[in-house]
Amino acid sequence: MSGNDIERLVQQFAKLPGLGPRSARRVVLYMIKRRETLMMPLAQVLRDVSATMKNCSQCGNIDVTDPCAICTDTRRDLTVICAVEDVAGLWALERAVAFTGRYHVLGGTLSALDGRKPEDLAIASLVARAESDDVNEVVLAMSATVEGQTTAYYLADRLAQCGVKLSRLAHGVPVGGELDYLDDGTLSTAIKARHKL
Amino acid sequence: MSGNDIERLVQQFAKLPGLGPRSARRVVLYMIKRRETLMMPLAQVLRDVSATMKNCSQCGNIDVTDPCAICTDTRRDLTVICAVEDVAGLWALERAVAFTGRYHVLGGTLSALDGRKPEDLAIASLVARAESDDVNEVVLAMSATVEGQTTAYYLADRLAQCGVKLSRLAHGVPVGGELDYLDDGTLSTAIKARHKL
Repeated sequence: MSGNDIERLVQQFAKLPGLGPRSARRVVLYMIKRRETLMMPLAQVLRDVSATMKNCSQCGNIDVTDPCAICTDTRRDLTVICAVEDVAGLWALERAVAFTGRYHVLGGTLSALDGRKPEDLAIASLVARAESDDVNEVVLAMSATVEGQTTAYYLADRLAQCGVKLSRLAHGVPVGGELDYLDDGTLSTAIKARHKL
Repeated sequence: MSGNDIERLVQQFAKLPGLGPRSARRVVLYMIKRRETLMMPLAQVLRDVSATMKNCSQCGNIDVTDPCAICTDTRRDLTVICAVEDVAGLWALERAVAFTGRYHVLGGTLSALDGRKPEDLAIASLVARAESDDVNEVVLAMSATVEGQTTAYYLADRLAQCGVKLSRLAHGVPVGGELDYLDDGTLSTAIKARHKL
């Protein structure tokens, strides 16, 4: 490879998750062939975002404004807060258009192994928001992993005194999931939480 | 997802080969968490390259200068030209540090199916370079595919009158390749082209 800048570009792309040196080269060559339609717009938007993005001081979401677009959206339900582990979870719920309240990004899960203690997560600010008069429900939307559920139990404990309703996401058979391919844990949870028809 | 710019960034990344919407989101979140160390340098180098990259007017390579760094490197052998299908092939040979001459990028292979005719490739300029006094060998480094080999035969025909030595890459067992996993074509080529010990 010749151009030092082009080589640096490949090296930078190779640092991204899911891309290695080979796929980074492929991506860069693909972009180079589509300079006007792909490379320049990508360079522009990447620069814009890296210059303007901020963490929302209210919920911890990432946006180009602070407070973020969700926290400032007056059409959203101010009475419900959905606590999520990270921004990826927030985005997933937003894509599903399943939740109309506001969010609170914890910044991870509690983990004895990785040494993440309650002080490392945005828990105090969640408790403060839950104690405000506006809020009357907190949804604990942690992942259904051991660490996610540990965090949810800890949060439920901390939020018990706030006088808010607590809820968690339902567990069960994923929509479109075939029983034959599901793990035992999901199946037994789905049986236990069965609904009356 | 909230920020419009962030969503646009994800959409741009999702257009890259090997990345879909899900992996593009993962990449963007990964970058956002590493703003100073990854996102800003990537934005900078992407902008630099998209603004400065050019096609070398001599060999067709992509670089930030024209002629490219390879064509202007006086330590390289001026008497040998290696014709490659595309820049990816040039990069591969450069990585292998296997060739010290200069290159000629054709811009693809002849293809009846895709309607690529000799006029669509940089063949006339290769013939002109081969006819110059400096050059006495052209290596035809096409891929070992039907289209690559068709292109190589066509080039050999066109270059026959130029008074240069023609050569092609050796076919055979890849270094580190196990016979059991090789295809029949490679094996029979390797047998036919066997060397005396």
